[in-house]
Amino acid sequence: MLKARAVRIAESGGPEVLSLGEIDVRSPGPHEALVEIAAAGLNRADLLQRRGLYPAPPGTPKDVPGLEFAGTVREVGEGVREVAPGDRVMAIASGGAMATQIVVPARELMPVPAALTLEQAAAIPEVFLTAFDALVTQAGLGLGETLLIHAAGSGVGTAASQLGALMGATVIGTSRSAEKLEQCAARGLGQTILVENAQFADATRAIAPRGADVILDTVGAAYLEENVRALATRGRLVVVGLLGGTKGTLALGALLQKRARVVGTVLRSRPPEEKATLTQAFIRQVLPHFGAGRLRPVIGDVMPMSYVADAHRRMEADDTFGKIVLRWE
Amino acid sequence: MLKARAVRIAESGGPEVLSLGEIDVRSPGPHEALVEIAAAGLNRADLLQRRGLYPAPPGTPKDVPGLEFAGTVREVGEGVREVAPGDRVMAIASGGAMATQIVVPARELMPVPAALTLEQAAAIPEVFLTAFDALVTQAGLGLGETLLIHAAGSGVGTAASQLGALMGATVIGTSRSAEKLEQCAARGLGQTILVENAQFADATRAIAPRGADVILDTVGAAYLEENVRALATRGRLVVVGLLGGTKGTLALGALLQKRARVVGTVLRSRPPEEKATLTQAFIRQVLPHFGAGRLRPVIGDVMPMSYVADAHRRMEADDTFGKIVLRWE
Repeated sequence: MLKARAVRIAESGGPEVLSLGEIDVRSPGPHEALVEIAAAGLNRADLLQRRGLYPAPPGTPKDVPGLEFAGTVREVGEGVREVAPGDRVMAIASGGAMATQIVVPARELMPVPAALTLEQAAAIPEVFLTAFDALVTQAGLGLGETLLIHAAGSGVGTAASQLGALMGATVIGTSRSAEKLEQCAARGLGQTILVENAQFADATRAIAPRGADVILDTVGAAYLEENVRALATRGRLVVVGLLGGTKGTLALGALLQKRARVVGTVLRSRPPEEKATLTQAFIRQVLPHFGAGRLRPVIGDVMPMSYVADAHRRMEADDTFGKIVLRWE
Repeated sequence: MLKARAVRIAESGGPEVLSLGEIDVRSPGPHEALVEIAAAGLNRADLLQRRGLYPAPPGTPKDVPGLEFAGTVREVGEGVREVAPGDRVMAIASGGAMATQIVVPARELMPVPAALTLEQAAAIPEVFLTAFDALVTQAGLGLGETLLIHAAGSGVGTAASQLGALMGATVIGTSRSAEKLEQCAARGLGQTILVENAQFADATRAIAPRGADVILDTVGAAYLEENVRALATRGRLVVVGLLGGTKGTLALGALLQKRARVVGTVLRSRPPEEKATLTQAFIRQVLPHFGAGRLRPVIGDVMPMSYVADAHRRMEADDTFGKIVLRWE
């Protein structure tokens, strides 16, 4: 067994339950690779897991958070042809990414574009795979469609805004923070709507009279009725987060009349073959655009891994724009 | 202008507002056909329209109900190659099908299989097109999947049961009536669940432990929470009716965890090109199975058109199994 340093969750609670400790890491089996992690992106799911509200799926360490990473391949198991020791890679993980070493299926690894550092790369997998899966696989976003993105200044929001624009959609981003919307506008992330009292359907129709063909939502229950109101005929509401509650009111009458759909989706609980399928599609369809500079990770801050508790506090205070990345020293 | 006999809705109200009267019918324009109607199927939407709750879409007579018909082509407009005078045809309509004559786009007409009478054919279009669109186009029902059908003894229910079985799915039908379930079983329409207090998820899992891959629902709000509970991972809930209310509670947490979707759909409000697309797919994929006897319309009763008010009363009393067909004498 190899020893690795790792963020540990001592028990469910506030940021103070986090500390650096040591874990055992096994050797890579067939079709697996051992990656030495340089940096890991922080996600809201890490905060939920710390609070005991989002347990790690079976087969994942329960007390080591971390859902994405970038690093260097150190060892590969039998039959691995996708990567070799020394390759710079990035990936999502079901957990355990806030460690110095991780063993993952080789088909879930993506090469890091040469133009990017590993710290930059660590900000890509969760938000861009989530946005790609939501917009392309789940919603089938098409050229010339209108895409409404809630929490446009979040990690997923900034990724989806770029991806939507790249796909030829009209992008509208919402936020409850005027400051975040200014940052979106400054970065060219589409048109913006400031949300007060969970109202945005009228403002959406002022920009796109038919309504939104696709809505990417991380809010959930609190926006559900207004989201259905904002949808165009044959619109698709894709819900990837539930920051505004888990049980909402669904106006089925409007849903039928619009022939619209509500799609729920998460990455974490998917079986490995589905993650590999998504990753391979992302490598083909999206990754080249990072190399060409048409997509870029939006990073709020890079902090040393030993500051992980502070990083949690900052995300809980919602005072960053873009991703928080934690790096090993 | 040609004169036609027709069912007229004098004003919004009970079955007593219905009577037979006369309407003008224009000649078929380019790509249209004039059909002499022999029989029309009765639908719940006709009852809603009579009560003033489901207005006819623009371009449709407001006071003549009728959403499907079978009859004989009498005249065709310029450029029509699909049908010729004398052809036996059937179709859905946006309204106005309870008349002796109707003008419709030729691409929305389907040939009546030789083995069927026009009265039998009049029971096919709404329920089989709805079931086909819901199961194939909207839900993507696949071989070996589990299909849960609510109101299995209804017109859409009996059509969907047959279609689901034909596609190699495991079919489970629900009803609140033990008598209707007996009739389903007697006709080989899949396994059955008697629903009490809107509970059916546990019973579904007793038959299909993973839950239902596809649910075809005509109830809406009253079943929404239990439907999400009954869905399998990656399940699709297709809502085609709202007999149980229009605003329901959606458990978004479960929807995300299951990566499931809720799809609302109706046929009536679709633009003509979408109806034609659906009709042509149905002709290719489904119609041959009627000729071969693998699908058959389920008819509760055939009544003379002059009994239309009685037919409405019977549907409101919910005392038939399968479709009510009204025929011109």
